[in-house]
Amino acid sequence: MEQRAIRALLEQVANGSVPVDEALLKLKMEPFEELGYAKLDHHRGLRQGTAEVIYGAGKTPEQIAGIVDAMRAGGQETILITRMSRQSADAISPSHPFVYHEMGRIGIVGNLPEPDGVGTIVVATGGTSDMPVAEEAALTAQALGNQVTRLYDVGVAGLHRLLSHMEEIMNARVIIAIAGMEGALASVIGGLADCPVIAVPTSVGYGACFGGLSSLLSMLNSCASGVSVVNIDNGFGAGYLASMINHLEGKHA
Amino acid sequence: MEQRAIRALLEQVANGSVPVDEALLKLKMEPFEELGYAKLDHHRGLRQGTAEVIYGAGKTPEQIAGIVDAMRAGGQETILITRMSRQSADAISPSHPFVYHEMGRIGIVGNLPEPDGVGTIVVATGGTSDMPVAEEAALTAQALGNQVTRLYDVGVAGLHRLLSHMEEIMNARVIIAIAGMEGALASVIGGLADCPVIAVPTSVGYGACFGGLSSLLSMLNSCASGVSVVNIDNGFGAGYLASMINHLEGKHA
Amino acid sequence: MEQRAIRALLEQVANGSVPVDEALLKLKMEPFEELGYAKLDHHRGLRQGTAEVIYGAGKTPEQIAGIVDAMRAGGQETILITRMSRQSADAISPSHPFVYHEMGRIGIVGNLPEPDGVGTIVVATGGTSDMPVAEEAALTAQALGNQVTRLYDVGVAGLHRLLSHMEEIMNARVIIAIAGMEGALASVIGGLADCPVIAVPTSVGYGACFGGLSSLLSMLNSCASGVSVVNIDNGFGAGYLASMINHLEGKHA
Amino acid sequence: MEQRAIRALLEQVANGSVPVDEALLKLKMEPFEELGYAKLDHHRGLRQGTAEVIYGAGKTPEQIAGIVDAMRAGGQETILITRMSRQSADAISPSHPFVYHEMGRIGIVGNLPEPDGVGTIVVATGGTSDMPVAEEAALTAQALGNQVTRLYDVGVAGLHRLLSHMEEIMNARVIIAIAGMEGALASVIGGLADCPVIAVPTSVGYGACFGGLSSLLSMLNSCASGVSVVNIDNGFGAGYLASMINHLEGKHA
Amino acid sequence: MEQRAIRALLEQVANGSVPVDEALLKLKMEPFEELGYAKLDHHRGLRQGTAEVIYGAGKTPEQIAGIVDAMRAGGQETILITRMSRQSADAISPSHPFVYHEMGRIGIVGNLPEPDGVGTIVVATGGTSDMPVAEEAALTAQALGNQVTRLYDVGVAGLHRLLSHMEEIMNARVIIAIAGMEGALASVIGGLADCPVIAVPTSVGYGACFGGLSSLLSMLNSCASGVSVVNIDNGFGAGYLASMINHLEGKHA
Amino acid sequence: MEQRAIRALLEQVANGSVPVDEALLKLKMEPFEELGYAKLDHHRGLRQGTAEVIYGAGKTPEQIAGIVDAMRAGGQETILITRMSRQSADAISPSHPFVYHEMGRIGIVGNLPEPDGVGTIVVATGGTSDMPVAEEAALTAQALGNQVTRLYDVGVAGLHRLLSHMEEIMNARVIIAIAGMEGALASVIGGLADCPVIAVPTSVGYGACFGGLSSLLSMLNSCASGVSVVNIDNGFGAGYLASMINHLEGKHA
Amino acid sequence: MEQRAIRALLEQVANGSVPVDEALLKLKMEPFEELGYAKLDHHRGLRQGTAEVIYGAGKTPEQIAGIVDAMRAGGQETILITRMSRQSADAISPSHPFVYHEMGRIGIVGNLPEPDGVGTIVVATGGTSDMPVAEEAALTAQALGNQVTRLYDVGVAGLHRLLSHMEEIMNARVIIAIAGMEGALASVIGGLADCPVIAVPTSVGYGACFGGLSSLLSMLNSCASGVSVVNIDNGFGAGYLASMINHLEGKHA
Amino acid sequence: MEQRAIRALLEQVANGSVPVDEALLKLKMEPFEELGYAKLDHHRGLRQGTAEVIYGAGKTPEQIAGIVDAMRAGGQETILITRMSRQSADAISPSHPFVYHEMGRIGIVGNLPEPDGVGTIVVATGGTSDMPVAEEAALTAQALGNQVTRLYDVGVAGLHRLLSHMEEIMNARVIIAIAGMEGALASVIGGLADCPVIAVPTSVGYGACFGGLSSLLSMLNSCASGVSVVNIDNGFGAGYLASMINHLEGKHA
Repeated sequence: MEQRAIRALLEQVANGSVPVDEALLKLKMEPFEELGYAKLDHHRGLRQGTAEVIYGAGKTPEQIAGIVDAMRAGGQETILITRMSRQSADAISPSHPFVYHEMGRIGIVGNLPEPDGVGTIVVATGGTSDMPVAEEAALTAQALGNQVTRLYDVGVAGLHRLLSHMEEIMNARVIIAIAGMEGALASVIGGLADCPVIAVPTSVGYGACFGGLSSLLSMLNSCASGVSVVNIDNGFGAGYLASMINHLEGKHA
Repeated sequence: MEQRAIRALLEQVANGSVPVDEALLKLKMEPFEELGYAKLDHHRGLRQGTAEVIYGAGKTPEQIAGIVDAMRAGGQETILITRMSRQSADAISPSHPFVYHEMGRIGIVGNLPEPDGVGTIVVATGGTSDMPVAEEAALTAQALGNQVTRLYDVGVAGLHRLLSHMEEIMNARVIIAIAGMEGALASVIGGLADCPVIAVPTSVGYGACFGGLSSLLSMLNSCASGVSVVNIDNGFGAGYLASMINHLEGKHA
Repeated sequence: MEQRAIRALLEQVANGSVPVDEALLKLKMEPFEELGYAKLDHHRGLRQGTAEVIYGAGKTPEQIAGIVDAMRAGGQETILITRMSRQSADAISPSHPFVYHEMGRIGIVGNLPEPDGVGTIVVATGGTSDMPVAEEAALTAQALGNQVTRLYDVGVAGLHRLLSHMEEIMNARVIIAIAGMEGALASVIGGLADCPVIAVPTSVGYGACFGGLSSLLSMLNSCASGVSVVNIDNGFGAGYLASMINHLEGKHA
Repeated sequence: MEQRAIRALLEQVANGSVPVDEALLKLKMEPFEELGYAKLDHHRGLRQGTAEVIYGAGKTPEQIAGIVDAMRAGGQETILITRMSRQSADAISPSHPFVYHEMGRIGIVGNLPEPDGVGTIVVATGGTSDMPVAEEAALTAQALGNQVTRLYDVGVAGLHRLLSHMEEIMNARVIIAIAGMEGALASVIGGLADCPVIAVPTSVGYGACFGGLSSLLSMLNSCASGVSVVNIDNGFGAGYLASMINHLEGKHA
Repeated sequence: MEQRAIRALLEQVANGSVPVDEALLKLKMEPFEELGYAKLDHHRGLRQGTAEVIYGAGKTPEQIAGIVDAMRAGGQETILITRMSRQSADAISPSHPFVYHEMGRIGIVGNLPEPDGVGTIVVATGGTSDMPVAEEAALTAQALGNQVTRLYDVGVAGLHRLLSHMEEIMNARVIIAIAGMEGALASVIGGLADCPVIAVPTSVGYGACFGGLSSLLSMLNSCASGVSVVNIDNGFGAGYLASMINHLEGKHA
Repeated sequence: MEQRAIRALLEQVANGSVPVDEALLKLKMEPFEELGYAKLDHHRGLRQGTAEVIYGAGKTPEQIAGIVDAMRAGGQETILITRMSRQSADAISPSHPFVYHEMGRIGIVGNLPEPDGVGTIVVATGGTSDMPVAEEAALTAQALGNQVTRLYDVGVAGLHRLLSHMEEIMNARVIIAIAGMEGALASVIGGLADCPVIAVPTSVGYGACFGGLSSLLSMLNSCASGVSVVNIDNGFGAGYLASMINHLEGKHA
Repeated sequence: MEQRAIRALLEQVANGSVPVDEALLKLKMEPFEELGYAKLDHHRGLRQGTAEVIYGAGKTPEQIAGIVDAMRAGGQETILITRMSRQSADAISPSHPFVYHEMGRIGIVGNLPEPDGVGTIVVATGGTSDMPVAEEAALTAQALGNQVTRLYDVGVAGLHRLLSHMEEIMNARVIIAIAGMEGALASVIGGLADCPVIAVPTSVGYGACFGGLSSLLSMLNSCASGVSVVNIDNGFGAGYLASMINHLEGKHA
Repeated sequence: MEQRAIRALLEQVANGSVPVDEALLKLKMEPFEELGYAKLDHHRGLRQGTAEVIYGAGKTPEQIAGIVDAMRAGGQETILITRMSRQSADAISPSHPFVYHEMGRIGIVGNLPEPDGVGTIVVATGGTSDMPVAEEAALTAQALGNQVTRLYDVGVAGLHRLLSHMEEIMNARVIIAIAGMEGALASVIGGLADCPVIAVPTSVGYGACFGGLSSLLSMLNSCASGVSVVNIDNGFGAGYLASMINHLEGKHA
C-alpha cells in the first residue's frame, strides 16, 4: 500500500467515510502477505511512498503473473516489473492494463501516473548500446510519476553532441548519466550541471572493460562534485533514486 | 564568486546601485585567475551555486595559504579546505577568521553560514573509526548551509543502537551512511528511510577489507532502493551532494 | 618408529644383516609409517555415521547411479547427493527409496534420519533467489539428523521481516545466514544472535556483485563476532558444519 | 504495534483527537517500535558474561586507559584489549591487575577466568610467523574461559610435525587453523579432525601472497568438510567463535 | 562571451529590459556558448576524409544495412564495418560493391583507396590465434589508405622467426604488435624498431591469461621505449591510430 | 659483425664505394645478423627428437588433419595433438596409426616411444575432477618417452590416501601435482618428496575458486621447496617440462 | 652514441677527415661498456636515434654520477636522468652543465637541443596533482628536441578550461593527455583533436582509484579513436613516444 | 642432519667405528629440537639431502644467531640465511666462519661447498634492478654445490645483449630467468634454450606492474615450453629448485 493510499485511508477515517474496523482490516492485511515464493512487502510501499516493483530476474512467468494478480487484488494500481522477459510479458493476464517495453525489459501494469515530481529528470547515455539500461531508468522514473527527458548517444568522444543539449542539462532537477567503456560522461555532465548526477556504469564494452569495472571505477573517481554511483547496469536503482529526489519537495511543503 | 554573489551583483545593477562598468570589471576578473600552481575556477562557483573549496591533499601549507589569501581578496566569504594537515592549518594567515577541525581534517575560513537548506542531513557511521570521514562530510554540509544531525557508531552488529534513532532517520531529508568493513549500514538505513541515502564506504578495516573494497562492493550491491555510492573515504563528496539535494527546493520555488 | 625399532635397525646395520642403503631408506620413510592409516580411515567411517555424501557435479547420471548402488550394497542407509541434476535423479534405480529436491538440487536415498542434534539449526536467506543454496544447506542438515527452521527472504532492506523472527533467532543453536548482493544479513544476524553464525555468500546479483565477491568480502569483514564464512554458494558445507556443531554434545557427554 | 493499539489510533483519527499526519508517522515507525531495545542490550550483556573486549586499533593510549577505568568502575572483572600497542599497555593504570602479551598484542585486565568450556581448543599454525595471530586467538579463548592447546609451526611442508600431534587433534572440540602463504593447513587438519575447524588466513608471505589473499582463497576452497573461515589475521574472531562453540553445551543442559 | 556582449547584457539588466534571472542563466551558460559546434562537427567530417566506420557489434543486420544505404546515399564512397557477423554481411544490398573478410570480421563497402600514407604499417602477431585481431587492424589500415605488411606467427618463443624479418621491422613507419598469452612480442619489437609500436593485447590464451589481462599488463609494463597500448582485442583502434600516424606528414608539409 | 667486416665497411665508406646511408643501415642491423638462424632452427629440431606437438585448440578438424598429413609425409613418426575434440579425432585419416584419449583430450599419431627417461614421473591429482588435466600431462610425458605412474584422487583432505603411496613419491624423479580448489596437494607433496615438483593448478571448483585463481596462488606461495608452477590447467606444459627434466642426464653423460 | 653522431662519424670517414682506424676504434668501444652495475647500451642510441637516458630509480647518487661521467667521456652530449632525487642531482659533478627540475624529478646534463621536430607536442593534465608526471613527459620531449605546449589543470569537470584551449589542441601534432582519478581527459581530447593522443594514467587519487587502476582502465576503454595508453605515471614513455612521432618525417624526407 | 651425514653415520655403524647406542642417541635427538621460537626440522635435511636454510625475514638478530649456534653445535656445516638484514649479519658470532652478501641479503655460515652438480646453472636478469633477487638465487645455488653463471641486464628490449650470450644459454643445464615489468625474458630464453627454465617474476616496476603481478602473469602464460614459475621475488626457491634439478643424476647413478 502506498503512502498516498494510507494517507487517503486515514483521511477517510478522519472524515468518517471509512469506518475504523474496515481501515483496521485493510492495514492488518498489509505487511506480510504470504505468496508462497516470497513475502511481498506492502509495508515497504508505506515507508518509501512509491508504487510497487517486481524484480523479474529469476522468477518464472507464472510466478510474476501470480504476484501481479495478488497485488492488483490488493488494490495496487501501478506495478513496475523490471528485468522482464518477453515470455513473462506474455503471461500477464489480459484483464490487466499492461504495456511491455522490450528495450528496457520493463513491463508496466496499470496506467502511468501523471507526473507529479518537482522538475524534469534527464536520462543521458554515452552510446546507443547503453539504451537498454537507460530505458530501464527512464521508464522507472515515469512509472513513479516523473517528467523524463532522454538524451541518448551524447558520449564525450563527440563533445558537441552533449554541449548542444546544454539547456536541458542546465534545467534538469536530477540527471542520470549512463555510460559503459570509459564512463567519462558522468564527470563531464557533473562538471556542467548544478544538480545531483546519478551515474550508472554499464557493462557495455569489451576487453579491459571487465564487465563494467572500467566505467564503475571511473565514475566512483569522478572529479566532479555532486556525482554518486549505483551498481553496474542498475537502471532501475537510478530511476528510483532520481524520482525520490524529484519528489522531495512535497514532504516539507 | 558564488551564484548568490552574482545574483546580488546583477540586482545591484538592476537597481542602479552598481554601475555597469564596475559590474563588468568584477565579472571580467572572474573565470581564470592564474595563481601559478592552479587555475582557480571562480566560475565553478557560479555554475554550482556554492562556496569555494580547496582540496588540501598534495598542496604545501604555503600554497594553501596563498590560495586562501587570493580567494579572500577576491571577495570569497567562506572557504572550505579539505584533507588539510595541522601544519597547513598553522600557515593560514591570522588575519582571516579560521577554525581547524582536526578529526575531519577540515579547515573553514570565514563564518559558517546560517543553515538555509530545506531539511536536516543525517550523518551516520557504523563505527567510531569512521568518524574522520563522517566529520569531513558533516562539516562540508554545515559549511554549505545545512542543519546536520550526527549518529555515530550505530553499526548493524548492534542493531538496537540504530533503531533507537528511528525518529531522526524518518525525519531526515538526506542521509549519509558511512561504514567500512562490511558496509551493511547503507542497506539497513536504505531499507528504513524514505529519503535519498548517500553511502560512503571507508577504508576502515584490515585483511579482506582490501582498503575499502569490501564496503564499496557491499554498498554498490545494496538491495535497498534509494541508495547511491561515492568513492571510498569521500566524505566531502557525500556532504556536497547531500547539500545539493537539501537545497534543491529553492531553485524551483 | 619407536626407539626400539631404530635400535634394532642400527644393530642390523652393525652386524651387516641390513645394508646401509636399505637402512637409509627406512629412516627416510620413518615419520609417516607408524600412523595406522587403516585406523584413520576407519575412524572417518565411524565419525560420520549418518549419511554418506556424493558430490554430483561433474559426474554422469550413470556414475552417480552406480555409486549409489554400490553404497547401498555396502549397507549404507542414507545417501545425500548434492549438485544433482534432474537427469541424474531420473537415473537412480527405482529399487531404492529416493526423493529429489529440485530447488536445492539434492537427492536423498533412504529415509531422513530422526533428528538427534542438540538444538535447532536456522537457515535464513536475504532473498528468494538465495533459496537454492539454502535448500542445499537445509536438506544437508536434515539428512545428517538435525531439526531445521527455514527463514527465507528476510533480507536487511526490510528489517522488520527479520525482526519478526527474533524468537527463532534467539533460540537457534546454529544459524546459517545466506545472502548474495551486499551480504549484510550475516552481520545483522550475528549482532542479534548469541550462537555461531555460518555465513554463506551467494552468487546472486549482477554487476559489481562479481559472481559473489561482494557478499563474500562483506561477510568476511563482518563486524559481528561469532560469524565465519564458507565458499560462495556452498550450502552443503554450511549444512555439514552446522550439523557438526549441533552434534558436538554427544561426544563429551 | 498490536492490533489493539492500531484500532485505538484509528479511533483517535476518527474522532479527530489525532491528526492524520501524526497517525501516518506512527504507522510508519510501527514495525520496529515494540522490540524492547533495552532488553536486547541487556541480553547481550548477559550472554557474554565473561570478558568485555576493547578493540585497541585506532584508539589512543589515553582512550584505552579511560575505557578500562570506566569498565572496571562499572564492575567488569576481566577486560580483553586486542591490537594493543606497548605504549597503550604502559598507559593502563597500575591500580588494575594487568598483563600485556606482546606477541599477540593483547592486554588482559583482571585475572583469567577458570576454564569452563566443554573441551579443549587447539590453536595450530603453519609457521612461526603466524604466531602473533595465533596468540591473539589463544589468549582470547583463554580470557573467555577455555582450555587451549598450542601447536605452532606444524605446517604441511613438514607433515610429520603435524602428524606427531594426532592425539591433540583428535581430542579437540574446536580447532583454530592459522596459516599464511598457501594456507593448506586448514584443509589438512580439516581432513584429519572430526570437529569444527575455524581457518584463519594470515598476511604472512610476500609476492603473490597479496596480503593474505592466497591463504584466504585457499581456505575458502577447502575440500575438507567442517571448515569455515574468518577474516585475514582475525585471531580474535576465531578465538571468540571457538569459545562460543566450546560453551554451547551449557545452554541446553 | 565577448566583453562587449557581457556589457550589453549588463546594460539591459540596468535598464530593466532583461530580468536578473535571465541574465544569470545567460552567464551560467556562457563558457560553452561561443564554440561553434557545427564547425567542430564539420571539422571531424573533414579530417577523416577516407572511410566512415560502423561498429557492427550489437547492431542487427537490418540496422547495419540501413546505415550503409544511408551513408552511400549521402555520398560516402568507402565504408568499413567492424565486428560484423556473416549474417550482417549477407544483409548488405547487392547494389553496393562489398567484400566481407571473415577472419577479421570486417566488411568493406566500396573500393579500397589507393595507399596515400607516408610509409608502411607492419602488423605482427605472436601466434596464429591472434590473426582475427590482426586482420581487423590490417584491413582497417588498408581501408584508411595505408600500405600494410603482415608478419603473422612471429612470437618470441621462436625468436628466429621474428629476426628473419628484421628488414621489414627496420623499414616500418609504424608497427602494430599483437599478442595474447604473455604479450612479449611488443617489448621485443619495441627494442628492435625505431618507430612507434602500437601494442594490442589479445584475449587469446587460457587459465591465468584472465581474458587478456596477462598480455595487457605485460605490454603496459614494456621496458622498450616507443610502445603504447590499446584495449584488448582492439584491432580497429590500432589500425586507426597507425593510419593517423602514417598520414601525419601531409598536414605540416 | 666481426671487427674485420666493420673495418671493410668503413673502408668502403672512405673510398666512396658505399654511401653513408647504406653503411648506417648495415650498422643498425648488425647485432642480430651473425646468429645463424637456420642453425638455431635445426638445433630445435634436434633437441626434441621425439614427438612433434600440435596445439589443437582453435584449429578446425580439417586444419589438424592437414598438419598431421604434412608432418607424417615429412617423416615425423609420433605426433601429439593436445586440446583435441572428438570431431577433430574423427577427421584424422585412417591411414595413420592413431589413438584418441577422450579424458585428456589428446590424440596420438604413431606409436608411443619406448620410455628412455632416467626415472619415473609421478602424476598425482587432488580429486577425480582434475583427471582431464592429469591425463593431458601423463600422455604428453608418455609420448615424449617417459615411464609414468598415476596417483589420482589423493587430495589432502584424506591424507592417508596420499601417505599410502609414499613409496611411489619417494622413488619419483619428477612429480606433477595437479589440484584445483585449495591446491594444497603441491605443498604436501613438496614437503614429502626430494625431487622437483611441478604444480598444475586447475580450474576445478566454484565460487571463490575464481577459475583456478585460488589453487594458482596457493601453489605459488607453497612453503615447500622444490615446487614450481605452470599455468592453470596446463597439463601439457607440465608433462613436457617433466620429460625434459627426466631426460637431462643423457646430455652430460 | 646517437644515430646522428654515427652518421656524422661516417660522413667524416667518407670525406676523409677521420681515418678508418679511428672510426673503427670508436665503434668498437660502443655496444657493451661494462660499468659494474649495468651494461650501458650505447648501441641503443644508434637504433633509436635519440639521446641517452638514465632511469634513476633504484640507483645510488654515486652510481648515477658514475654513469654520467662515463657517458660524457664517451662523447654523449645530452643526458636525461629520470626519477632522479635531489640527492642524486647534488652528486652530479659540477664540471658538467646540468639542470635539475624538481617537480618532474628530471635532471638534464648538457644543453637542451634546438627543437627539430615537425610540430608541437601538447602536454595536458586533468589536475595540478598530475603535474610531476606531466613535467617528466614535457622535459623528456624537450630534451629530445621538441617544441612543447603545457596545458595544465584542464580536467573535464570544468570543461570550459579545456575548451578555451581549442586552438592549441587543434594545432598539435601529438597530444599527451595525463590524468588520474577518472581519466576522462584522454577521451574528451581524443574526441576533439585529429592527431595521435598518448594517454598517461596517473596514480593521483584515493580510494577506488586503486593506485591508478581507475584511470588506466578508463583510458584503455576510450571510445575516442586515435588514443593509446602507456603505463601509470609513465611520463617519460609518453614524452619519448611523442617525440618519436613528432620526428617521423625526417626519416622519409 | 643432512642425508650425507646420516649415510656416513650408518656406514660408521656398519664398520663398527660408531657404536649402536651412540648412533641411536644422535638420531633420537634429531627430528624436533625445541628452540623456543621454532621447531628446527633437522629431519628435513634428511629427506631433502641438502644443507640447512634459515628464512631470516621476521626473525630478530638474536633469534637468527641462536639458531645458527644450535645448528652448528648439532654438526651442521653450511648454513644459508636468506632475507637477512645487515643487523642480523652483525649479530652472528665471530666464532663461525661467515660471509654476508648485502645485495642478495644472504648470509652464509661455513665454507661454500665444492660444486658437485652435473652442469652449470645460468642466472639471467632483465635489468639491474632484478639483481637482488638474482643474487639470492645464485648464492643459494652456490651454497648448495652448484656452478653458477650470471647474465645480468640482458632484458628483451635490447635483444642483442641476450643473444651475445647464446653459448652460455645453450650450455646451461638449468636456467633461472628473473625479470620484473613485462617479464618477457622467460619466454625468450625458454624459446632459445633446451633445458628447464625456472622463471622468477620480480616486483620491480611501477604502476600497472602491481607489485609483480604483470611479470607473474606473463611468465605463467609463457608460450615457450619448459618454463615453470615460482613466487614473485622468490630467488631462494628458484636457486633451490635449480640445484635439485642439477643434482638429480647422483640419485640414479
